[in-house]
Amino acid sequence: SVSAVLPAGGSGERLGGAIPKQFCAVQGRPLVSYAVRAMERISWISDIIVVVSPENIEAMKTIVEKYGHKRVTVVEGGITRHRSIFNGLKVFAENEFSSHLLQKPEVVIIHDAVRPFVEEDIVSKVVMAAKEHGAAGAIRPLVSTVIASAPDGCLDHSLERARYRASEMPQAFLFDIIYKAYQQCTDYDLDYGTECLHLALKYCKTNAKLVEGTADLWKVTYKRDLYAAESIIKDNLSQQVCVITNVKETLAQVGFLLPESLKSQIKVEAISISLSKNDSHLQNIISRQCYNFVCVNDKRCAIQETQELVDMLEKSNIPLLCPVVLILVHLDISENNSFNIGMEDLTTIKKFARETKKKNILVYGLLIQYK
Amino acid sequence: SVSAVLPAGGSGERLGGAIPKQFCAVQGRPLVSYAVRAMERISWISDIIVVVSPENIEAMKTIVEKYGHKRVTVVEGGITRHRSIFNGLKVFAENEFSSHLLQKPEVVIIHDAVRPFVEEDIVSKVVMAAKEHGAAGAIRPLVSTVIASAPDGCLDHSLERARYRASEMPQAFLFDIIYKAYQQCTDYDLDYGTECLHLALKYCKTNAKLVEGTADLWKVTYKRDLYAAESIIKDNLSQQVCVITNVKETLAQVGFLLPESLKSQIKVEAISISLSKNDSHLQNIISRQCYNFVCVNDKRCAIQETQELVDMLEKSNIPLLCPVVLILVHLDISENNSFNIGMEDLTTIKKFARETKKKNILVYGLLIQYK
Repeated sequence: SVSAVLPAGGSGERLGGAIPKQFCAVQGRPLVSYAVRAMERISWISDIIVVVSPENIEAMKTIVEKYGHKRVTVVEGGITRHRSIFNGLKVFAENEFSSHLLQKPEVVIIHDAVRPFVEEDIVSKVVMAAKEHGAAGAIRPLVSTVIASAPDGCLDHSLERARYRASEMPQAFLFDIIYKAYQQCTDYDLDYGTECLHLALKYCKTNAKLVEGTADLWKVTYKRDLYAAESIIKDNLSQQVCVITNVKETLAQVGFLLPESLKSQIKVEAISISLSKNDSHLQNIISRQCYNFVCVNDKRCAIQETQELVDMLEKSNIPLLCPVVLILVHLDISENNSFNIGMEDLTTIKKFARETKKKNILVYGLLIQYK
Repeated sequence: SVSAVLPAGGSGERLGGAIPKQFCAVQGRPLVSYAVRAMERISWISDIIVVVSPENIEAMKTIVEKYGHKRVTVVEGGITRHRSIFNGLKVFAENEFSSHLLQKPEVVIIHDAVRPFVEEDIVSKVVMAAKEHGAAGAIRPLVSTVIASAPDGCLDHSLERARYRASEMPQAFLFDIIYKAYQQCTDYDLDYGTECLHLALKYCKTNAKLVEGTADLWKVTYKRDLYAAESIIKDNLSQQVCVITNVKETLAQVGFLLPESLKSQIKVEAISISLSKNDSHLQNIISRQCYNFVCVNDKRCAIQETQELVDMLEKSNIPLLCPVVLILVHLDISENNSFNIGMEDLTTIKKFARETKKKNILVYGLLIQYK
């Protein structure tokens, strides 16, 4: 089996803010929740251990509850990164750190709380390599030349950029190897070291396999990285839209034309269903994390049908993670359409939207009069 | 004297887009223009040489003209970074590369077109260090551990992070030293090298002084960096607002209350002047690159006064670089204010706004009726 440890105990000094970066809100949700979600999405990861400093235990537990994270155990960290990871590993081996001992995994993944965009593919590659080699880690090309300085603050030598790599996360280890390494390493290692691959090499003679990672493995370190994370998350949220039309003939044309015109800018799924039926196709789309829905209807106020969709969304837990946008289009194709939407309709939809907003589902109404 | 060379010939492969990153638009303006502006703002830099690949010469010249850049010479680059920098340096030493030979500087700064946020302070420090040591460069702490891989793709060893630094830009050199280094270096250096400090060390025995840089020196490398740059620029644009009220007593209170309530979120300059006079205080604020103005007036349509401000802004060249936002507030404190703004007023302000928009000045009108 495979489990994961996410050290989230850093103080975020480099960010220049009072809040450690893993707890900074990105689109209203703490960064650590994105990293947890990235791990949680991978079905073959059994347990996810999040290690936080003592003062953040309660905040982390609240995050786990609020965003509906599963398979997560929150563990108290140490004063350095290595000590925190060691504490995370102890949960699988020693009774003192957890009320119930979690099952010891064959392979343990170590990832950062501040790397929110890791994909299953790279995690899988690193885990496979760890099974074979005992240890493995993602690497990336160096962005800048690395230099060594002399004691007088002048250049001593520069490293040939092509021969070196940046060591990134995720990393993975046979549990017994990394646990043994942590048990044997010195206080100096625990206090000043930063590299788990180094411990496996030094104490277990295990040369980690290096796996070329993707650009999205980068670590949120500076304020600009929070900006970048926010933009990437926004981009991802708006990459897909699901257009739902009901089965009536008059609407079928809109159900065809709207997706066609959206296609060039966004991934569109168009389905034509009666919303009142629990549709498995729609269920599939929701579970693939679609956050944008357009429902085209010819009823003036299709609240009942919309409620079905809202219920499905709510059950999926999707709106817990990010806001879902739901645009209700009322297409008025009657002969003599005048501007005749009543106060009653407006009040109904407003009230409905106010209720769904509490569930993080943003409902907008749109009336189109077509002659 | 001091001049600068900005290599801008990169192909931007890592960005995954067709447009080289230095030409990507950030808030509508190419990244390279921000870097040029950062150099141009420093009054003691005589010439700024921008080196671009042959196919981008015309585009770069258009950028220089469009954004009103001064002291810039556009030079054709080579096929690698080092060859491009060498071409840039030749402008000061050989006739063939420029119609008129530019004056050879004592110190030459080398900076990147994709590092838009460099401040005068660090440039100054690097130049001073270069004067003393012959060469100098900005450095930053490493974000990730650097590792060396063995031929089998496994970890060979990891570097102790604290002993190494990332070499960043700007760098500066006594012109004669770096030019001699480029003249003597091999084709292999020119084709595969990346580090100017290394050339100065290897060919001129000059150990560059390393200067700790600020976090904003980072290089736009990936798409996420463009996102970050965009957010930082937006942030900077909205950091300051100038509230202008005319001298009438009835408005003085607003001129006091509005800045007070804005203070907690933004840097506010409040001035009380008659806009029709060419005010030196206002001139100062504009020259310090303020991009947001609120003009509070009790005339219904103070176009004439506003035109004066628009003229001042236009003369400053500020709107060439980024859009200026100008909010005209008409405060109606008459006894019986009814909703009586006429079509004529609306037309006038719309027409005015349409004209100023061409000059990158965005005018908004706001009518406040206060009983």
